[in-house]
Amino acid sequence: MISEFALIERFFSRPTRHTVLAGGDDAAILRVSEGCELAVSTDMLVVGRHFSPQADPFLLGKKSLAVNLSDMAAMGARPRWATLSLALERADEAWLARFSQGFYEQAGEFDVDLVGGDTTRGPLNICVQIMGELPSGTALRRDGARVGDDVWVSGVIGAAALGLAQLEGRTTLSETVARRCLDRLNAPQPRVQLGEALRGVAHSVIDISDGLLADLGHILERSRVSATLRLDAVLRASATELGAPTDSTALDCVFAGGDDYELCFTADPARRALLAQLATTLALPLHRIGKIEAGSGVRLLDVAGAEVALPRRKGYDHFG
Amino acid sequence: MISEFALIERFFSRPTRHTVLAGGDDAAILRVSEGCELAVSTDMLVVGRHFSPQADPFLLGKKSLAVNLSDMAAMGARPRWATLSLALERADEAWLARFSQGFYEQAGEFDVDLVGGDTTRGPLNICVQIMGELPSGTALRRDGARVGDDVWVSGVIGAAALGLAQLEGRTTLSETVARRCLDRLNAPQPRVQLGEALRGVAHSVIDISDGLLADLGHILERSRVSATLRLDAVLRASATELGAPTDSTALDCVFAGGDDYELCFTADPARRALLAQLATTLALPLHRIGKIEAGSGVRLLDVAGAEVALPRRKGYDHFG
Repeated sequence: MISEFALIERFFSRPTRHTVLAGGDDAAILRVSEGCELAVSTDMLVVGRHFSPQADPFLLGKKSLAVNLSDMAAMGARPRWATLSLALERADEAWLARFSQGFYEQAGEFDVDLVGGDTTRGPLNICVQIMGELPSGTALRRDGARVGDDVWVSGVIGAAALGLAQLEGRTTLSETVARRCLDRLNAPQPRVQLGEALRGVAHSVIDISDGLLADLGHILERSRVSATLRLDAVLRASATELGAPTDSTALDCVFAGGDDYELCFTADPARRALLAQLATTLALPLHRIGKIEAGSGVRLLDVAGAEVALPRRKGYDHFG
Repeated sequence: MISEFALIERFFSRPTRHTVLAGGDDAAILRVSEGCELAVSTDMLVVGRHFSPQADPFLLGKKSLAVNLSDMAAMGARPRWATLSLALERADEAWLARFSQGFYEQAGEFDVDLVGGDTTRGPLNICVQIMGELPSGTALRRDGARVGDDVWVSGVIGAAALGLAQLEGRTTLSETVARRCLDRLNAPQPRVQLGEALRGVAHSVIDISDGLLADLGHILERSRVSATLRLDAVLRASATELGAPTDSTALDCVFAGGDDYELCFTADPARRALLAQLATTLALPLHRIGKIEAGSGVRLLDVAGAEVALPRRKGYDHFG
């Protein structure tokens, strides 16, 4: 069987572009640009929980980095370096070849160096840590939302969860819509360019990994404010725009479905024109879905301004 | 059951000391000191492989950080920040309380901030990433050994492996010796102060996690040199000094046993007096065990200068 060192040498040793020392020593050595701070985040993906044992290793490699890139986007940081720790049942070379190909494809797209990691035998577990940099003091935090801010989301929300619902037989989508939703589930697009562009523009940012209500909820709690959302605007930002029906499963996915990795952010209404321009530049829809107000919690209004009940499920909790 | 957020809030939210933003956002924000580079390393510990399901969670918490601190020591970096990703079968509050206590005790001892992480459900898996800083260009790498250098090791080697051998019934130590060896296995002491003191002194450094021959071998390969070791000197640096017998199991542990987390390093002979002084200052024995020479590989000599066969096993490989 292939040895641990050969495994690393063969699958995880591509050259780096902006790293002092990567791989092959006790630690990697990085140099953060002058005047910049370092943003650090980590995500652990477990087989049977975050992905199925049959998952395409290429897409899994891409996604394991994508979900971390999304955290950089949500801070407004430019991703630069990643480490990868892998527990593997066995050193399956075909699997590793595809996984590393996917990981490096995503890394290349965002100019990220894989600088180190660990491999060990064990139940399949993928732990990625991402590191990025941003000018000191410019991080897009969750605690900056202000009363009067607009609430925005990028792209399409609820589609990834709807794709999962389709896989699990909880909904029946047309072939075209199912493909679109599954694509969102399997190959999320981290909004890194948007995150960087939001520095100095947005007051607060989060990425939607646990569902709109749960993640917006974090902004509201941290900022000690409330939000009022308009149902019609949320639906225009949602999987229904991909052709999904607006049944209760779909609504549940839109409000409480995770894995979209779109950004939810708040900004002063004076920024609307700039954000419209940004949406054009990035070719990425930005939807204004509500307002930040005093108080706490989320209210949902219909077109007539009447309050609508929120879906019961509030997002994903690994131990709830 | 306790929720994911309550779990983090309750067990992993102690204040940080030198971090711009820790926990509760999409990423932590760190500021690397001016003129410094960042050293980054990660280790993944899997239940049943690196520790038993019955392991004391307090010691496990300590050790999961200690093995990472050891990588900082081996680079000469000052550890500053860590992230912790945990996959847990279930949210066992008693276990978590003890684990986090051990982790924070080790972090406190080395002034390390826990700045973020991830928790998820899955087969018990502990993935720690450590980040430290050191003046630019001063990292203690594996590729700097020079012909004529002395080869040194700190502390005691082979004891952790001998402790494991005792647990697994492969040797029979006296109660006192067994306790000493098990203490080394369960509560390794990362040599962080030594690592920092070796900046500008040692030509190459590695920590002994996979066994003396395997880890010294990495220095030799990277530096394209060979080493000649003296058996008597190695034994003075070994578990036999704790009272262990010099049987074949013990010798195997000394040369090929992992988990000691001592430092192996090379330095110019002109540094001997300085290193003797350093050993006194740190109250940590430093043993000169051989010489760096031209060529490749390791030779072992007895007191009379005759070549001795090396133990067959060359160290630990997770997939070998």
